[in-house]
Amino acid sequence: MADFSIGGKLRVTLFGQSHGPAVGCVVEGYPRGRWIDWEKVNRFMARRAPGQNAWSTPRRETDAYELVSGLDENGRTCASPLTALIRNTNAHSGDYPDLRVLPRPGHADFSAYLKYGDAWDYRGGGHFSARLTAPLCFAGALALQYLEEKGIAVCAHVARIGDVWDETPDTADPRLPLYGPEDFPVMNQNRGEEMKKRIEAARQAGDSIDGAVRCLVTGLPGGLGGPCFGGVEGALAKALFGIPAVKGLQFGDTKPYGSENNDAYRAADGSIRTVTNHCGGILGGITNGMPLHFTVSFKPTPSIALPQQTVDTCAMKETVISVQGRHDPCVVPRAVPVVEAVTALILTDLIL
Amino acid sequence: MADFSIGGKLRVTLFGQSHGPAVGCVVEGYPRGRWIDWEKVNRFMARRAPGQNAWSTPRRETDAYELVSGLDENGRTCASPLTALIRNTNAHSGDYPDLRVLPRPGHADFSAYLKYGDAWDYRGGGHFSARLTAPLCFAGALALQYLEEKGIAVCAHVARIGDVWDETPDTADPRLPLYGPEDFPVMNQNRGEEMKKRIEAARQAGDSIDGAVRCLVTGLPGGLGGPCFGGVEGALAKALFGIPAVKGLQFGDTKPYGSENNDAYRAADGSIRTVTNHCGGILGGITNGMPLHFTVSFKPTPSIALPQQTVDTCAMKETVISVQGRHDPCVVPRAVPVVEAVTALILTDLIL
Amino acid sequence: MADFSIGGKLRVTLFGQSHGPAVGCVVEGYPRGRWIDWEKVNRFMARRAPGQNAWSTPRRETDAYELVSGLDENGRTCASPLTALIRNTNAHSGDYPDLRVLPRPGHADFSAYLKYGDAWDYRGGGHFSARLTAPLCFAGALALQYLEEKGIAVCAHVARIGDVWDETPDTADPRLPLYGPEDFPVMNQNRGEEMKKRIEAARQAGDSIDGAVRCLVTGLPGGLGGPCFGGVEGALAKALFGIPAVKGLQFGDTKPYGSENNDAYRAADGSIRTVTNHCGGILGGITNGMPLHFTVSFKPTPSIALPQQTVDTCAMKETVISVQGRHDPCVVPRAVPVVEAVTALILTDLIL
Amino acid sequence: MADFSIGGKLRVTLFGQSHGPAVGCVVEGYPRGRWIDWEKVNRFMARRAPGQNAWSTPRRETDAYELVSGLDENGRTCASPLTALIRNTNAHSGDYPDLRVLPRPGHADFSAYLKYGDAWDYRGGGHFSARLTAPLCFAGALALQYLEEKGIAVCAHVARIGDVWDETPDTADPRLPLYGPEDFPVMNQNRGEEMKKRIEAARQAGDSIDGAVRCLVTGLPGGLGGPCFGGVEGALAKALFGIPAVKGLQFGDTKPYGSENNDAYRAADGSIRTVTNHCGGILGGITNGMPLHFTVSFKPTPSIALPQQTVDTCAMKETVISVQGRHDPCVVPRAVPVVEAVTALILTDLIL
Repeated sequence: MADFSIGGKLRVTLFGQSHGPAVGCVVEGYPRGRWIDWEKVNRFMARRAPGQNAWSTPRRETDAYELVSGLDENGRTCASPLTALIRNTNAHSGDYPDLRVLPRPGHADFSAYLKYGDAWDYRGGGHFSARLTAPLCFAGALALQYLEEKGIAVCAHVARIGDVWDETPDTADPRLPLYGPEDFPVMNQNRGEEMKKRIEAARQAGDSIDGAVRCLVTGLPGGLGGPCFGGVEGALAKALFGIPAVKGLQFGDTKPYGSENNDAYRAADGSIRTVTNHCGGILGGITNGMPLHFTVSFKPTPSIALPQQTVDTCAMKETVISVQGRHDPCVVPRAVPVVEAVTALILTDLIL
Repeated sequence: MADFSIGGKLRVTLFGQSHGPAVGCVVEGYPRGRWIDWEKVNRFMARRAPGQNAWSTPRRETDAYELVSGLDENGRTCASPLTALIRNTNAHSGDYPDLRVLPRPGHADFSAYLKYGDAWDYRGGGHFSARLTAPLCFAGALALQYLEEKGIAVCAHVARIGDVWDETPDTADPRLPLYGPEDFPVMNQNRGEEMKKRIEAARQAGDSIDGAVRCLVTGLPGGLGGPCFGGVEGALAKALFGIPAVKGLQFGDTKPYGSENNDAYRAADGSIRTVTNHCGGILGGITNGMPLHFTVSFKPTPSIALPQQTVDTCAMKETVISVQGRHDPCVVPRAVPVVEAVTALILTDLIL
Repeated sequence: MADFSIGGKLRVTLFGQSHGPAVGCVVEGYPRGRWIDWEKVNRFMARRAPGQNAWSTPRRETDAYELVSGLDENGRTCASPLTALIRNTNAHSGDYPDLRVLPRPGHADFSAYLKYGDAWDYRGGGHFSARLTAPLCFAGALALQYLEEKGIAVCAHVARIGDVWDETPDTADPRLPLYGPEDFPVMNQNRGEEMKKRIEAARQAGDSIDGAVRCLVTGLPGGLGGPCFGGVEGALAKALFGIPAVKGLQFGDTKPYGSENNDAYRAADGSIRTVTNHCGGILGGITNGMPLHFTVSFKPTPSIALPQQTVDTCAMKETVISVQGRHDPCVVPRAVPVVEAVTALILTDLIL
Repeated sequence: MADFSIGGKLRVTLFGQSHGPAVGCVVEGYPRGRWIDWEKVNRFMARRAPGQNAWSTPRRETDAYELVSGLDENGRTCASPLTALIRNTNAHSGDYPDLRVLPRPGHADFSAYLKYGDAWDYRGGGHFSARLTAPLCFAGALALQYLEEKGIAVCAHVARIGDVWDETPDTADPRLPLYGPEDFPVMNQNRGEEMKKRIEAARQAGDSIDGAVRCLVTGLPGGLGGPCFGGVEGALAKALFGIPAVKGLQFGDTKPYGSENNDAYRAADGSIRTVTNHCGGILGGITNGMPLHFTVSFKPTPSIALPQQTVDTCAMKETVISVQGRHDPCVVPRAVPVVEAVTALILTDLIL
């Protein structure tokens, strides 16, 4: 089953496990004859890489990739799939108890046990590991470059941590807002500091905290997508719910009454635009030429130091578990580039 | 492009336009050799049919279908696709202005214009029409019967109208809650009455109102779905965002902190269950044997009697539009069976 | 399972059984805003219809279709799927013994029994019936019109009946050969008469005879298809083997030695063409701008009047069966438009 | 576009170019919890590897692979895709002229030029290279082991070289024939020697020669596949035409008259079998429990030392080309394991 593949014309297949030799991806259908700005790819992937600041997991790991196929003799993309390989260098499987026997609450351990029995590599979360977002960001970085040349920009920020919300950008503005420091992008720095305090407080309590990422896309042509099951929302949703810890998705910002939610049309400089953008740039599954925007909500990281009740599945006895040492109190800041990557991949697939 | 198809093993293809001769569907892969309870199918489809109560569109139309393929000589399902045809009997295309020239705010008129130019049947919303949910409910009714025999029940209620919320059922309870009258199912009748008042007030104001549907599935086996892009959330999301007016989707009911959001495991009667069910019955894309639950939010119906600003796309001049006569102030109650139908189709596809 | 669907951008789904109320098809993704020449569609479908001459089955049946969706208010194709319904009017299920108990040699009866048990509609071959080629020809007729406007012509002839071969057209000639009477198209009329004699002799012997159809496509642009599993051969093959009784497929006309099989290039009028066309217009899975040509071979019709040994699957005893009355000695002439239809559908899908 | 992927439940994605860093594959959906006999995988891949005997290309290259994902900590297959990487170690791109300027007759050079312009890696045939059959054989070796445990054996032999045919095995015999030396498997050793002489004669003439591979599958259950476009023939055909140089495919061995082609049924030891097996084990797209058999025909290798006419696509002038040094006179013997691999992959996909 193609659990690890997404897309049609542009198709990405992920592979690898947290504690296997490598993770990576195969990208089929990427436009040919193009020079890639590899430095830009590296910078994008660095935004996702762990261990670089206070908010992330202590596992430090560069996401250095080897490109094993996809370039011609001059270094341009060619008709072959692009394949990237990222070696696992910092995997200590000894750090983990057998999650197949002691499932961690909130993790996939127990549902994986129901599906796979013992035939899955539980070490470091195996193929459920957020480590697979590294090759996903590699593929997304390629898509972002393609979109950029078409004048399309994808930009996400931390919209919420716990009960602290960032400001909302003007979603009817065809220009993207400029966010702050790239490892914690927010509209309003003060609220960003408040958010970081919430994360730090959760860490010190041995707990974790939830949040949300808002994504904006400007420069997108109208007429993308289709009715019914061919809609842009459905295509994005299928991919975005593939990001670990995503539980909710809202397109636009619906108002309660039709009279305020309907975005009035106006004629401006020979083109037709809407005054507001509550619909999020999509009507009837099809883009309307306004900025696309949506909000992805993440659950709090299930790995916490606080003791939690679980069941020893061999002894069928209740017991207590706590995850020490590798405790990442909030996945949201690092998820920002992952949301951008997934969005860019799906939009590129729709545009090609 | 297969905009009107969904599913793999069980594949549903919708066809038809609001004002063409008929709408209908082809259902491929439905289990063979089965007797269908057609009376039950009719009752289910009647829940969606318009014109039966105060909340719905004045267009009265029975959803009587003709089954043109799929049964053997004894009346059981066989190896051929099931095809249902529903004639359009109450379509007055004269009722509509040319939506390709005067796009209604909040409708798909303008985005369809960008995609199709004039090559789409704008009458009655054409293929964007909610009328296509009639054959979708036919297909869903078949899926619901299949699931029912497996002990799986799908049950949705009106979770919210405007700012009025229904009670939340106990989502860790393996039994489905019993809802009230089928055309406006709620947990708490008082709140249901309050919701109806909101809808009536919106109608009298010539306005429309938004809301949400919560869906619960009990009896579902653990181990369905898969990691990454193979998850249950993604499969359901792709289909649910195909329902007209859906803008948001939330699986489970995430709590802000990991310590409260993680669902503790307990051993009960030789099986392992969770104490709470904030995850919505899915972890890592895979069902965990607990009830599946999620909430789908709908925008307010874009057709309102109140005047709205639009642009005459020929003259490129701003003007005012109001949709008289056929004004349906809230799509949410009638969407309840549609959500059940789509959910049943996707779950059947995963189980087969 | 989507056994009855083919294609990607242009996707055709067939439905119906020989002895159910109707057969038909849904065509998704056909270009919008087009006027269809329905008279031409009718003429094309008439070529497939049975009962019109000495070579075909005695079952007389018009393939009159009702178009239940897909046209806008002016009669042009629109963004909705095109759905055609063909009523079954001449089905006498009493004519057939229970094929699930007495499988006919060479028919699908026994393999269907292994797959479906008794859960298939055996009457008239059910969904295996050649009757499904009627809606297939409807869909193909639409594709042929689309290709024709692009300057692409698809043209097939009876290449062989038994041991009598038709002449081979000059496959390096960019113009299509002109074939004779449309219900038995051949290059050489004398050989055509010889073929008809073979069919008549088989009929009188209560037997059936095999044959082959050669298909040529001119005007096709180079660069269609792709390497590996994306090749034109594979796409056509998957569809062509879906036609009842097809057992073989040969692209081009391979010569034994590379020195004679390789098609030399020549420069002609500013373009590059090949001197010969043994490769059939495809190299490495991709069209090279030369006429596409291939030969499809059909087994003899399994229904014969001569007695054959079978097994009563209930009694597990060997017995003898002969199919009286409805004996069609050669499927090949009527398969010519079906091969054209399938070819046109797949090529349209590749071009869109 | 997913040109390099095939399959549904079991999905194989190939990557790499002849002269890039590596070729390889990702195998999704392979059964979990299994020990693989890697020695057997190696032996199977060795049958395809070049440079080992008189019939193959002089490029000597081991197909040593690195497994970078797909095994758990104990070495069993797990829920992650299996990914194999085969480094390119013997690629001298200097050996080739620029095939984008001087297309070789019979090769994909010119059709690739029409599709890709200069955006493909022409070195060594790039992604058209037979080198991609190495990872295909890796994936096929895994599938063969799975089938073997189910009692299903896939076995192919050289059926024809030029005008020399091997004997035909008894295709109604449920046991596989035993073939000779694995690098040139034939039924009849004398004919095999004759075939080798044909190849050697072609080599000495600077020419190449065509041929065919016959594949038999025993132990296959009945009821696999489906009607119409879901047939076993179509699924196999799509994949087999993806093997370089394949131009024809014949299922079974059709006889001209129905009375001799129809395979009579007989009751034997409580089961129903056919007396002959002209249908090749498939009726109506569905296996009937008899051995599956088909013949794949290959064109002569287009690379020949003899001079051939081509066109300099820059100067638009006709010129002469001959491919020196790397001349492989017959691809057929080495294609035997590739046919087995592809067949095993598709059958496993159907069985899973």
